[in-house]
Amino acid sequence: MNFPSKLIEDAVNEISRLPGIGKKTALRLALHLLKQKESVTESLSSSIMKLRSEIKYCEICHNVSDALECSICTSQRRDRRIICLVEEIPDVLAIENTSQYNGLYHVLGGVISPIQGIGPDELKIESLLKRIENPKDGEKVQEVILALPTTMEGDTTAFFITRKLKELGVSVSTIARGIPVGGELEYTDEVTLGRSILTRINYSAE
Amino acid sequence: MNFPSKLIEDAVNEISRLPGIGKKTALRLALHLLKQKESVTESLSSSIMKLRSEIKYCEICHNVSDALECSICTSQRRDRRIICLVEEIPDVLAIENTSQYNGLYHVLGGVISPIQGIGPDELKIESLLKRIENPKDGEKVQEVILALPTTMEGDTTAFFITRKLKELGVSVSTIARGIPVGGELEYTDEVTLGRSILTRINYSAE
Repeated sequence: MNFPSKLIEDAVNEISRLPGIGKKTALRLALHLLKQKESVTESLSSSIMKLRSEIKYCEICHNVSDALECSICTSQRRDRRIICLVEEIPDVLAIENTSQYNGLYHVLGGVISPIQGIGPDELKIESLLKRIENPKDGEKVQEVILALPTTMEGDTTAFFITRKLKELGVSVSTIARGIPVGGELEYTDEVTLGRSILTRINYSAE
Repeated sequence: MNFPSKLIEDAVNEISRLPGIGKKTALRLALHLLKQKESVTESLSSSIMKLRSEIKYCEICHNVSDALECSICTSQRRDRRIICLVEEIPDVLAIENTSQYNGLYHVLGGVISPIQGIGPDELKIESLLKRIENPKDGEKVQEVILALPTTMEGDTTAFFITRKLKELGVSVSTIARGIPVGGELEYTDEVTLGRSILTRINYSAE
């Protein structure tokens, strides 16, 4: 593609480095920005800049935060006896948006993957165990919910952490895997359907 | 949507103001940027900033440019006897990418639209006429190709400009409208198909 201006070319190259944005979309966005008031591009540009340079990570749960401790960890309304363990930050957002969970979180920052050279030491496992051993405000953690991906790496990580947690006498659970709400039985893959039968919920036992 | 950080919320709000990008995509982009090195977000942010603040418009053809006169207008390799008239800057890029045109351009900056309050004076019509009356380097403009949109506004503008140009003794042509290359006759809309018959090319006359 030929560009009439080096400035446009630079902007298109930078914008098209974003995931899911190709050269054509980047050009469309650049030309859109050209038509906007200077204040619009200024605030876009500065918010992107600040996002990366000023962001902090919560010292307790490793979620993104504006302060040293995030709003979930410091909230008095959350149930401090439950910790939900997730792989990445977007997972926290996803669970928060369900409004079904009122406990705390812990972001591992990945899963154990020998192929990619990620061992337990690269993850925030040690800080999770410390959190449970020495609860900051004295309230003992009773349950850790594993919300890790259902990949081999996720399962390995879950197995590793479950063993560590059981030594500390904490109850460990995992989120249910099964057919999505509204999903059709006949179109569900066999692994999911198989799991949903194996991990069926027995109402009479409740 | 709840955001764990004001910085993320700001960035998502700003990014989602771009056309075709919703809140979900904006969040995905913001979280992607968080994972990148600071230099990546810095260069993205500064290229967006520079794009708007440092861009210039060519004094002759009103296309975007790095200097006061754009690279097309100053090029010695272009045919200075033909001017292609387009509505907006992306149209120049689109025609340039065909590599089929070697003349100059003129960007109108819109089309006549009484509903939106855009009259001939809001467009760069006067500067086009001046360009033709007083050619900068003495070479007379012989033809103006109209590459305006096929809307009512585009047709009005074309009609208005054609009349003015004929007074100056310039030949006026318009780009062909017809069935796209590879397009199927039976799926083409009637207006396009009708036009392609009315404006058919007579080989025997050549």
